[in-house]
Amino acid sequence: MRLYIGNKNLSSWSMRAWLVCTAFDLPFEEIVVPFSQAPDCSFQQTMQRIHPNGKVPALQDGDVLVWDSLAICEYLAERFPEKALYPKDAQQRVRARCISAEMHSSFMQLRQLCGMNIKADLREAGAGLWAEHEGLRKEMQRIEQIWAGRPQSDGFLCGNFSIADAFYAPVIMRIQSYGLPLSQDAQRYMQTMLTHSSVQAWVLGAQAEI
Amino acid sequence: MRLYIGNKNLSSWSMRAWLVCTAFDLPFEEIVVPFSQAPDCSFQQTMQRIHPNGKVPALQDGDVLVWDSLAICEYLAERFPEKALYPKDAQQRVRARCISAEMHSSFMQLRQLCGMNIKADLREAGAGLWAEHEGLRKEMQRIEQIWAGRPQSDGFLCGNFSIADAFYAPVIMRIQSYGLPLSQDAQRYMQTMLTHSSVQAWVLGAQAEI
Repeated sequence: MRLYIGNKNLSSWSMRAWLVCTAFDLPFEEIVVPFSQAPDCSFQQTMQRIHPNGKVPALQDGDVLVWDSLAICEYLAERFPEKALYPKDAQQRVRARCISAEMHSSFMQLRQLCGMNIKADLREAGAGLWAEHEGLRKEMQRIEQIWAGRPQSDGFLCGNFSIADAFYAPVIMRIQSYGLPLSQDAQRYMQTMLTHSSVQAWVLGAQAEI
Repeated sequence: MRLYIGNKNLSSWSMRAWLVCTAFDLPFEEIVVPFSQAPDCSFQQTMQRIHPNGKVPALQDGDVLVWDSLAICEYLAERFPEKALYPKDAQQRVRARCISAEMHSSFMQLRQLCGMNIKADLREAGAGLWAEHEGLRKEMQRIEQIWAGRPQSDGFLCGNFSIADAFYAPVIMRIQSYGLPLSQDAQRYMQTMLTHSSVQAWVLGAQAEI
C-alpha cells in the first residue's frame, strides 16, 4: 500500500491516516507530497494525477484508490479485521465510530482558527483566540466531554489505541502549539497520546522538515 | 431500533440516516424531535437526555446509542451485511465510502449558504449566492464530478441505491430550493433520486409539517 501525505508539520488529515497505518504496523510506503507555495501549484498537480479530488491523504492499495482520511480508516478496518483498528468490544466500537465521525464533520472553529502547525509556538495568538471566540471554547468543551468518556483515565479513548485516537491526535498538536487551556483529566489523555510511539514518530518527522 | 430525527423540512443530517433505514427496509421506529424556536430550548434538552452531543440524528439499538449520521450508516452497514448498504463490489464499495466521507467533512460553503429548506422557494436568493460565491460554484463543480463517476447514467452513484446516495440527497433538495444550475448529466442523476420512493416519502413528510 502507498499512503500519500502532505507535510507532517501541517497536514492534520494526513496525520490521522498515517498514525493508523503506523500504530497498527500495516504494510505501507509513505509518499510525502509537500504543499506548494503559491503560485507554484505542483502539490495540486501531483495529487490530481492520483485522484480528481486532489487532496491528501490518499491510499493506493493495488488497483484500489481510497481518498478521505475517514474512508481510508474504515477501509483499513475492514481490510485488516484481525488488527482491531476499531475496538472489538461492541460498545467501544460504536463509540469509536461516533467520535471519529463527529471529528470528521465538526469543530470548524478549532480547525479554522487554530490550523495545525506542530513546530510553531503560537501561544500568544492562542490566548487571544481563546478570549475572543466563544465558539472555540464551546468546541473544546465538547472535546473534553468526549475525552472524559474514555474507559480508563490513563488509557486511550476507547480502550486500546484505535482510529478514534488517531482522529483526535491533530487536536492535541493544536492545543500544544496554541497553548489552549485544558482540565487535568484532559491533560492526562494528552500525555498518554504524546508518549505514544506513533505520535512521537510523526512529531519527529514534522520537526525534521525544512 | 429508534431513530431520532429533526424536522424533515430542515434536518439534512437526519435525512441521510432516515433514507438509509427506509430504502433498505430496516426495522426502525421514527421519532421526530422538532427544532425549537429560541428561546425555547426543548429540542436541545430532549436530545441531551438521549446523548451528550445533543444533536440529531441519533439511533438507539437496544443498549447501543449511535450518534452522527455517518457513524449510524457505518454501524447499520456492519449490523445488516446481507442488505449491502454499501455495495458488495470492492471498487464501488470503496468509492461509496470515499464520497460519503467527503460529503461528511466538506462542502462548507454549500452547507452554510444554502441551508436545506425543502418547502421554500429560494431561487432568487440562490441566483445571488451563485453569482457572488466562487467557493459555492467550485463545490458544485466537485459534486458534479463525483456524480459523473456513477457507473450508469440512469443509475445511482455506486450502482444500486446505497449510503452514498443518501449522503448526497440533501444536496439535491438544496439545488432544487435554490435553483442552482446543473449540467444535463447531473440533472439526470437528480431525477433518478427525486423518483426514488424513500426520497419521495421524506419530501412528503417535509411538506406535511406545519
